[in-house]
Amino acid sequence: MDSQTYVSVHRRTPLVKPLHTTAPGSFWGQFPVLQHDLDLTDAEIERNLDRQSLRIREGLQDFVRGGGKRLRPALVIIGARMAAASRGEGIDGQPAPESAIRLAAGVELLHAATLIHDDILDQASHRRGRIALHRQYGAHDAVLMGDFLFSLTFELFADHASPDQARVLARGVSRMCESELRNAEAPALTRREYMRRIFGKTTALFILSLTLGASEHGAPEALLQQLRRIGYCLGTSFQIQDDILDITGDPKKTGKPVGGDLLAGTVTLPLILAAEGPTELATWHRSVESAPARARRQIVQTILSDVRDRGGVDVATRQASAYLDRARAEFAGLPAGMPAEALRSVLDHLELRQS
Amino acid sequence: MDSQTYVSVHRRTPLVKPLHTTAPGSFWGQFPVLQHDLDLTDAEIERNLDRQSLRIREGLQDFVRGGGKRLRPALVIIGARMAAASRGEGIDGQPAPESAIRLAAGVELLHAATLIHDDILDQASHRRGRIALHRQYGAHDAVLMGDFLFSLTFELFADHASPDQARVLARGVSRMCESELRNAEAPALTRREYMRRIFGKTTALFILSLTLGASEHGAPEALLQQLRRIGYCLGTSFQIQDDILDITGDPKKTGKPVGGDLLAGTVTLPLILAAEGPTELATWHRSVESAPARARRQIVQTILSDVRDRGGVDVATRQASAYLDRARAEFAGLPAGMPAEALRSVLDHLELRQS
Repeated sequence: MDSQTYVSVHRRTPLVKPLHTTAPGSFWGQFPVLQHDLDLTDAEIERNLDRQSLRIREGLQDFVRGGGKRLRPALVIIGARMAAASRGEGIDGQPAPESAIRLAAGVELLHAATLIHDDILDQASHRRGRIALHRQYGAHDAVLMGDFLFSLTFELFADHASPDQARVLARGVSRMCESELRNAEAPALTRREYMRRIFGKTTALFILSLTLGASEHGAPEALLQQLRRIGYCLGTSFQIQDDILDITGDPKKTGKPVGGDLLAGTVTLPLILAAEGPTELATWHRSVESAPARARRQIVQTILSDVRDRGGVDVATRQASAYLDRARAEFAGLPAGMPAEALRSVLDHLELRQS
Repeated sequence: MDSQTYVSVHRRTPLVKPLHTTAPGSFWGQFPVLQHDLDLTDAEIERNLDRQSLRIREGLQDFVRGGGKRLRPALVIIGARMAAASRGEGIDGQPAPESAIRLAAGVELLHAATLIHDDILDQASHRRGRIALHRQYGAHDAVLMGDFLFSLTFELFADHASPDQARVLARGVSRMCESELRNAEAPALTRREYMRRIFGKTTALFILSLTLGASEHGAPEALLQQLRRIGYCLGTSFQIQDDILDITGDPKKTGKPVGGDLLAGTVTLPLILAAEGPTELATWHRSVESAPARARRQIVQTILSDVRDRGGVDVATRQASAYLDRARAEFAGLPAGMPAEALRSVLDHLELRQS
């Protein structure tokens, strides 16, 4: 079944199961062992947040609990389980190794940290359907909350990852910042530059997540390479979809208002594909940036409607699907079993992504 | 010579040599080998910043170059050199080992990162005699610049420190955030709580700096313990002095306006010593927080003048000196040579600290 057929078949399904761990009938519930690992991961996250004083802890707990997909920690655990399978160790019925759980928690905390800081940067009003943390606690506390989560991540990595993986993590975070700083300086005006930035912003952490658990649990180099390629395609597709959802998404599902990217000065793939070239993109970007605050939302709506009419969203959607197909094409030879099935389900699920 | 005599003798010296590396006739110039190590550290910092795009790089370079004391990296190098001396290796004429230089750069970058984020938190207007980075580039870029420097620190540690030291670093940073978050929640109303917070905020990084290079270069446990105690006294004294300078300092020398701490809601040792008890402290704190913005500076001036009149500054100054004396008392048995002399000079120099 190619991805087009898949989409058309599944579009008829009325309810897409949410990816959130905590939601009843969650996506991960199909894989009870994995669901249990993710529950352990949540417990590990809570344990780490516990040392904060009450008010801050509650804010962070609410934020971390509130509707995260647990996609990145699931990838860590899937990787660790695949490594075990590749060594012929049947751990499918048991919980994942403790260090994999700890690193999964670390990756989720890192993700939460970047979201908190990103929302300050973008002056976002909402996240995960709630008021953004910096609006609730002030930018002051939100900067520190993010810093605190960053440092927890590095603690977990220092304790449970090899120096090599700690290095990969540190590089990943500095590249993430570089990407964001480039965005703050000037918008991406070419597809090539866009791909470079989303690599730093999102893709690198997907690759890290999928290879981290695997590498720590003795996966052979060939498997690591395979997971790296799958992580690349998965992460790239995920971020393109994110950027599409910013234009077409239902705020009730995404938890974020429409058009937030362009409003914050970020130019994404649908715009790049729809524009006649860098000059028109720069004009769009400038027209938003230079408009008085009250007129901005209207200008963004007009540009985005143009982008949709010119097919920018459709082509971007096809490109996101194509990356998922490329990921599926990399499956040949993966150790058979629940981890591979779960990973394939993730890819299929993203085809239908609405949040 | 006890510290009181020292102060009275040296107060007559008209010019206190600045601790800044780059200043002509700098303090470190007394120790040419150490000065050279610090120049190498600066070069390593520049190399790390180089990968950023132009505008951001310039901002960070200006900030990192601009008047930092290089105290923490000097401690790293002093520690590494002492470890060599304790092993009977005479490296006094040679540059410090490359890994010590790299870690010294990491510690300085971490320090810069915390300053940048602190200034956002405190809404500080100036730092090191210049407009604070977040005022120049916007909170947006400043959050990211800090994050970027944090991640560079973790990269340098992942590459050049043992996993143990990377762990100490990560714990140190998370404790730093915890201290600041506690400050944001409620002021310190007792000396005990004040000491706990400055430990997380400042002292821990001094201890880390002084033991880091030593531990990485094979110092025996007894020497490490000794350096830990010296680092504790040095860091504690340094932060108490910092808090005194916030009240009595010459803005031309400190590079910061007077009364910034209380203005930002932070209660420091001179206030704690001068107040009749927690109730009065809480009243002071509330009177500043609840005042309309335009009246705040005047209220702060009135409180601080009261604090001075009641001897809060004098007693705090004696306590800061006493910590330096305790540090000096720990010197017996340190490997003789330039590193120990430089460390003693740092203590003596801090006795006269004006910035």
